[in-house]
Amino acid sequence: MNYFQRKKIKDILADNIDSYKDVIVMGWVRTKRVSKNIAFIEINDGSCLNNLQIVILNPSEFPLDDINRGASIKVTGYIDKVEGREQDLEMKAEKIDIIGEAPEDFILQKKRHSFEFLREIAHLRARTNTFGVVNRFRSKMSYAVHDYFYNKDFKYIHTPIITSGDAEGAGEIFKVTTLDFEKLAKAENGEIDYSQDFFGKETGLTVSGQLEAELMASALGDVYTFGPTFRAEKSNTSRHASEFWMIEPEMAFCNLDEMMVLIEDFIKKLFTFALNEAAEEMDFFNKQIDKGRREIIANIIEADFAKITYTEAIDILEKSGVDFEYPVSWGIDLQSEHERFLTEKFFKKPIMVKDYPKDIKAFYMRQNDDNKTVAAVDCLVPGVGEIIGGSQREERYEKLKSRMQELKMDLDEYQWFLEIRKYGTVPHSGFGLGFERLLMYLSGMQNIRDIIPFPRTPGTAKF
Amino acid sequence: MNYFQRKKIKDILADNIDSYKDVIVMGWVRTKRVSKNIAFIEINDGSCLNNLQIVILNPSEFPLDDINRGASIKVTGYIDKVEGREQDLEMKAEKIDIIGEAPEDFILQKKRHSFEFLREIAHLRARTNTFGVVNRFRSKMSYAVHDYFYNKDFKYIHTPIITSGDAEGAGEIFKVTTLDFEKLAKAENGEIDYSQDFFGKETGLTVSGQLEAELMASALGDVYTFGPTFRAEKSNTSRHASEFWMIEPEMAFCNLDEMMVLIEDFIKKLFTFALNEAAEEMDFFNKQIDKGRREIIANIIEADFAKITYTEAIDILEKSGVDFEYPVSWGIDLQSEHERFLTEKFFKKPIMVKDYPKDIKAFYMRQNDDNKTVAAVDCLVPGVGEIIGGSQREERYEKLKSRMQELKMDLDEYQWFLEIRKYGTVPHSGFGLGFERLLMYLSGMQNIRDIIPFPRTPGTAKF
Repeated sequence: MNYFQRKKIKDILADNIDSYKDVIVMGWVRTKRVSKNIAFIEINDGSCLNNLQIVILNPSEFPLDDINRGASIKVTGYIDKVEGREQDLEMKAEKIDIIGEAPEDFILQKKRHSFEFLREIAHLRARTNTFGVVNRFRSKMSYAVHDYFYNKDFKYIHTPIITSGDAEGAGEIFKVTTLDFEKLAKAENGEIDYSQDFFGKETGLTVSGQLEAELMASALGDVYTFGPTFRAEKSNTSRHASEFWMIEPEMAFCNLDEMMVLIEDFIKKLFTFALNEAAEEMDFFNKQIDKGRREIIANIIEADFAKITYTEAIDILEKSGVDFEYPVSWGIDLQSEHERFLTEKFFKKPIMVKDYPKDIKAFYMRQNDDNKTVAAVDCLVPGVGEIIGGSQREERYEKLKSRMQELKMDLDEYQWFLEIRKYGTVPHSGFGLGFERLLMYLSGMQNIRDIIPFPRTPGTAKF
Repeated sequence: MNYFQRKKIKDILADNIDSYKDVIVMGWVRTKRVSKNIAFIEINDGSCLNNLQIVILNPSEFPLDDINRGASIKVTGYIDKVEGREQDLEMKAEKIDIIGEAPEDFILQKKRHSFEFLREIAHLRARTNTFGVVNRFRSKMSYAVHDYFYNKDFKYIHTPIITSGDAEGAGEIFKVTTLDFEKLAKAENGEIDYSQDFFGKETGLTVSGQLEAELMASALGDVYTFGPTFRAEKSNTSRHASEFWMIEPEMAFCNLDEMMVLIEDFIKKLFTFALNEAAEEMDFFNKQIDKGRREIIANIIEADFAKITYTEAIDILEKSGVDFEYPVSWGIDLQSEHERFLTEKFFKKPIMVKDYPKDIKAFYMRQNDDNKTVAAVDCLVPGVGEIIGGSQREERYEKLKSRMQELKMDLDEYQWFLEIRKYGTVPHSGFGLGFERLLMYLSGMQNIRDIIPFPRTPGTAKF
């Protein structure tokens, strides 16, 4: 099959090959133009956005009639440098083998297809320019995340997907079970015996790896998770999916203000990686998806993130004179319109808002001395508002326990979580970044369904 | 909190710090020895296996009575180089702050605890030498996987966790649902209406990302997955977990023999990474877990993997004169005893066995011309037998369809999978490597429960 001999188009176009002769290329046909004395085929192999132009000087000797758009072919030939053309490399074909044919009416025609249409054929959409770029971008940015943390000596932790507690009451949970539904449906007394279930109790899909990451940070220092999380919410919006990947770092010996420095560094390093190491993809997004996206990202890298408290934020909003849809007063949860006013209109750059009212935040956040607020922080960026949320965690056993009791939580379910506060507890902080949100922000892509290869949303789980 | 100022013990011991004065270290106390004029504390911060020795020259001025094993402390002082000692760096304490106390009877005492006991306190076991090492090793080897593929220009694909088909009939599947069990249990007619479920149909947890990876390889070329997979099998063995991470590369334009070259390279590169980049962990395993482990791994890196067919393997086994528990004849699935005989006794090195009888292999494997075998390969290593399984996939639409019909599979469920065979189909191959199996092999750890931070096994899903 010549897997090791064939050249990837990416390398050919970057002039990164050792010989211009006896070159083998394999890929899928994007266009074909045939005239009497010459023919052109553009071929793409998924290695990069650009196609390689194949030139056929004696068309009658090649099986061109059987080569439709979408077909896979193997081309043997030599590379020619053509001066003064946009794409200055092309390949002269000496031999073309058809690997797999495609029908003339292959569904991906040259015209532009709508994203909605392409969602219905998720098995083929990665063969389009946009979704090729999106998938390569997703892959590169995944690597960027691992590379950032590896070089900072954070330990990557695989937290469990099947869990027995709802970490933070973050939303509805998918149940995981091996109970026999038919038996259940035929049971006469209406009772469910979870001791018969696979794990001997009720289990569900994780909504966050944070609590387990806290356990590990209390032994290893700096850790992070990067894995799938789930929400069984019937929100059919362009920003919600039922299954998505979260990045959740957790740092021992780190307080809120220190974490805010880390968050700023993290965002800037990831954004810099995107501009430099995923330049092809960012250029595409900048041209085809959202003009000016590159500049927005570059500006964030240059900016000094503003840092204010929630109380200061409320003060700014109240004095703004803006007629918000949701009225502003101390104690409200900031809405997107408020966040965007702060970051876009008032500060005109990313900001971090800290010390939120405890009643609108999760039980595990560290209680501030004012008894009203907790050490939470949200990072807001122009265009969307919140992109990262985090907090210093309550490391004091008694404080955490009494807060949990106040909220009528089942302490037994959180035994381990409480216990690490009894044995050499340490101040620690962590944050969460939705990977798809990050990709949407960098790319300007508007629908989360277009950022995930095979998205899961209410009513949709094809394949 | 001095998160950015503190030095990690790893860097101090590697003499990788910029100043020996005003050093801040934070971590957990491992041992304390106090005499009248001098005291010693060994502290570990999770950054490496070794503790840092803290020397206290005027013990009466320090709060040593309140510092028990397990407590977290912050030490300020200076680093002293001590010549002629095994660990030649120590820290003279000028100030010690207790961050979090631990009771005198802290559960992790200096004595050696059994792995069985430590499994019951998974929230604390990462504070022991062995599990600190295991977790750092897991993190490093995860990075090794991503690094290998990134540098080979493979695209990392996040395949869905919630799926609607049982990819390969690989085993029992966990159901994922939001159906109301109580309602179900009270239903009178015993009927289950999946249209009311979250995705409008039956869904379960993925057993493999392979089929989706095939779809993506048919657009992007070289791809891989690295994510959690699930088996709802009630096997309570030391090698089975209900939730584990799989690495599944899938290569377009690659046939079986070519993939075998890639598999050998992959194993050797990962093993080399372990010896070089995770030397501390490998040294620990070699000393504490399985003497000679390093040599076994080094030998595999040096070996030329033998390559034989299944038919040749059967021939060797039949002629061996060995009295196997499971009798040998053409058509049987190779058992561990057979695999180990081949790799340990006969070849005395890793081997790859290819072209297995089609009836013992999955439907998607490419049918060989003999009509009896398929292009499957297993890679066997001394000590365990199979460590990697893979195959060239059936890329011919008609052949695949008729095989699926033969096996009475629901073609509708596999519409996308079949369809890519119609539009520019390409020969492609892929393999799967269980990440925990890899870690167990490299480390010599014997139980999969000790390789996963919070393992899920039948009856066990704590936290």
